[in-house]
Amino acid sequence: MNGHHGDQNDRRRFLKGGAALAGLAAVGGARPGQAQSAPGDATSNDYALYGERSRFVTAMRKRMTGPTSDSYVASPVQEIEGTITPNSLFYISSRDRGPYTPPTELDPKEHRLLIHGMVDRPLILTLDDLKRLPSVSRIHFLECVANTIPSPGGRWKWETIQERFGKMSCAQWTGVALSVLLREAGVKRGASWLIAESADGVRHSMSITMEKALDDAMVAYGQNGEPLRPVNGFPMRMFVPGWEGVRNIKWLRRIKVVNEPYLTQTESHVNPHLRLTGKSRWFNLEMGAKSVITFPASGARPLNGPGYYEITGLAWSGLGAVRRVEVSTDGGRNWQDAKLDEPVLRIAWTRFRLPWKWNGEETILQSRCTDEQGKVQPSLAQFSEVWGVRPDYFQETENQVTHFNPIQRWRVLPDGTAKNAIWDI
Amino acid sequence: MNGHHGDQNDRRRFLKGGAALAGLAAVGGARPGQAQSAPGDATSNDYALYGERSRFVTAMRKRMTGPTSDSYVASPVQEIEGTITPNSLFYISSRDRGPYTPPTELDPKEHRLLIHGMVDRPLILTLDDLKRLPSVSRIHFLECVANTIPSPGGRWKWETIQERFGKMSCAQWTGVALSVLLREAGVKRGASWLIAESADGVRHSMSITMEKALDDAMVAYGQNGEPLRPVNGFPMRMFVPGWEGVRNIKWLRRIKVVNEPYLTQTESHVNPHLRLTGKSRWFNLEMGAKSVITFPASGARPLNGPGYYEITGLAWSGLGAVRRVEVSTDGGRNWQDAKLDEPVLRIAWTRFRLPWKWNGEETILQSRCTDEQGKVQPSLAQFSEVWGVRPDYFQETENQVTHFNPIQRWRVLPDGTAKNAIWDI
Repeated sequence: MNGHHGDQNDRRRFLKGGAALAGLAAVGGARPGQAQSAPGDATSNDYALYGERSRFVTAMRKRMTGPTSDSYVASPVQEIEGTITPNSLFYISSRDRGPYTPPTELDPKEHRLLIHGMVDRPLILTLDDLKRLPSVSRIHFLECVANTIPSPGGRWKWETIQERFGKMSCAQWTGVALSVLLREAGVKRGASWLIAESADGVRHSMSITMEKALDDAMVAYGQNGEPLRPVNGFPMRMFVPGWEGVRNIKWLRRIKVVNEPYLTQTESHVNPHLRLTGKSRWFNLEMGAKSVITFPASGARPLNGPGYYEITGLAWSGLGAVRRVEVSTDGGRNWQDAKLDEPVLRIAWTRFRLPWKWNGEETILQSRCTDEQGKVQPSLAQFSEVWGVRPDYFQETENQVTHFNPIQRWRVLPDGTAKNAIWDI
Repeated sequence: MNGHHGDQNDRRRFLKGGAALAGLAAVGGARPGQAQSAPGDATSNDYALYGERSRFVTAMRKRMTGPTSDSYVASPVQEIEGTITPNSLFYISSRDRGPYTPPTELDPKEHRLLIHGMVDRPLILTLDDLKRLPSVSRIHFLECVANTIPSPGGRWKWETIQERFGKMSCAQWTGVALSVLLREAGVKRGASWLIAESADGVRHSMSITMEKALDDAMVAYGQNGEPLRPVNGFPMRMFVPGWEGVRNIKWLRRIKVVNEPYLTQTESHVNPHLRLTGKSRWFNLEMGAKSVITFPASGARPLNGPGYYEITGLAWSGLGAVRRVEVSTDGGRNWQDAKLDEPVLRIAWTRFRLPWKWNGEETILQSRCTDEQGKVQPSLAQFSEVWGVRPDYFQETENQVTHFNPIQRWRVLPDGTAKNAIWDI
């Protein structure tokens, strides 16, 4: 007899009548997010057991001086083949949360996730508890809200593709849908937001709408087939597909269900988008339609003389799938549709490719993304209009203009190198 | 004006009139596949620049004693989240090609790929040449022809999931379609096979049909976003989606276009499938429909008492996409359809999941894959019938019964551990 698992899936709760997860009573034991000292087994250096890359491969992340006291560590996007960022090269961002001291020593046996607030049944979950629940694996990009922002006041030279676009990566994430966890806890009537809190030194916290939580957000524990790396939130993190990276709370220790957004330190003081008028824009959640040519590009390998090349790059949108990528090789006079690698996934990097014959002369390359909602990546002029400023404002202002997604232009020089030309109007 | 790249894509050759790739004349220079001594820059141990995993994460590959003089190194499939195998844990196989001495020191600047034989324009390509050509990135599994074979004569204890299923992995591969390379070289009339040759110590070679070469095979240089690892073929390898791993020639140095298969050493002496009748089966190319429950499983983390769990596992087929995975939790009396993680990709691992409430009693778990061609993974009894042998033949024979894809059974014990039960009829 063939049955069907629908009967089991349709139950509102998985744990009804079971004793799988610890209840709130367990709070007297280990505290959420407490780091402990017991180490795991030492790892072996035997390359056959845990591998290493070729000594001829030297791509590295790059520490960047941030606008305040803290760090970005940028991924070498110009070196990434395809659309998966290896975990060892995944970007790290921890701006405005004090000196960079990620809690990399969290013991998964001691770490706890507390879900409380406007719920019927507060829960405390270990990593093992989490893994018992229905999980899902999906490929999504993650982008720092400050990816591609101009260097404030022009103080730093952020000119290469790694410096301008390195605060984003893409991975396959595995975890438990927030909808499953909230169903377990039982959300009370009137609850409309969640506050997610990190086990880092400053208890970094951000607000997430209940609507997004019940749609596609997850508590992730796996990244590209292995556990999250310590710098990316091990043992568990919030993952909110398409939303600015800063809301994807790493080292997640607490989810509080509430009825309004909290104006946390990062939300109210750091991330608002100040305009010339003095007004600021809060809760700009989704990252917009965006793209970049990764070859040729400033900091990528140079062209080796005239002839045939494949122009390639990445496109993405926090609003859904990429529908179209156009490329211009002549400074914007003509645009051609690039070919997109299949499958084109929702809220994931999409690799685009276009054959190109270079005549050896100086020219400007650029790409333009259109997403499934019809949002078109703006030119710098269009982006400036929306802001009500001149294009050179962005280079001069001390404000952090986040969600900065104008079309990126690379100027290819006769020697085969390329340089940043976004400001060359 | 909006153009379209179709005009360029439709050209039969990319390099017509260009001087992009070295012709055969360059053969007087560096020889294909020659290893050179100049190292790259030393890598840094700074975790921020090239990351490491948590010291609490200890999954490792495992060296297995092989049936002859050589090695398998098995991937810990029970630890893989989702469907991407991290490169550091990707399986390694090099059986019957002498002691395990992979040419891990190949310098990409010196390595050459020669394409010759029945072609109009023999080519010699460097890695840089290859990267100039149109590339593609696709997610595919790779499975050793000997994955899950019974230990010959029962000499080794291959009982855990890592020991039985560890000779397979799944990655995103980036490379140039063989069809593009063959179009560049110009295939002569009458050519029907390719012989691919490795730069390893024994010049391991295998035959590939022209039909497959022109369909979806590629010369890959990228794996999960970074260059191939040395043990997986750096700087370039043949990738033949769905075909037995042994034909996916690593450290690829030569492709010869010919008009018949070559009975290479591996093809004629090692891999034929001997039957009781004394007859053998050659050129069994595609890996069949197959699946395995990765949790619970022998060698996976144990169950922690009765209650709710998610059964999860992997399904795949060398013939296309997985259409359906059924799971039985009661020794085969009832079967339920498992849920498949989206997107379900062609010739790729597919993660399946099924909610399960364990009552704490001993039981047998098993999964059955059906692929898009309607091929159904056989039971051991059905597989034995095809071979014309009793089921216990496979445990006793010294023959290597490759392409071994019967349904895997795990016996869950009251203490929460599981053990191999495929032979428990």
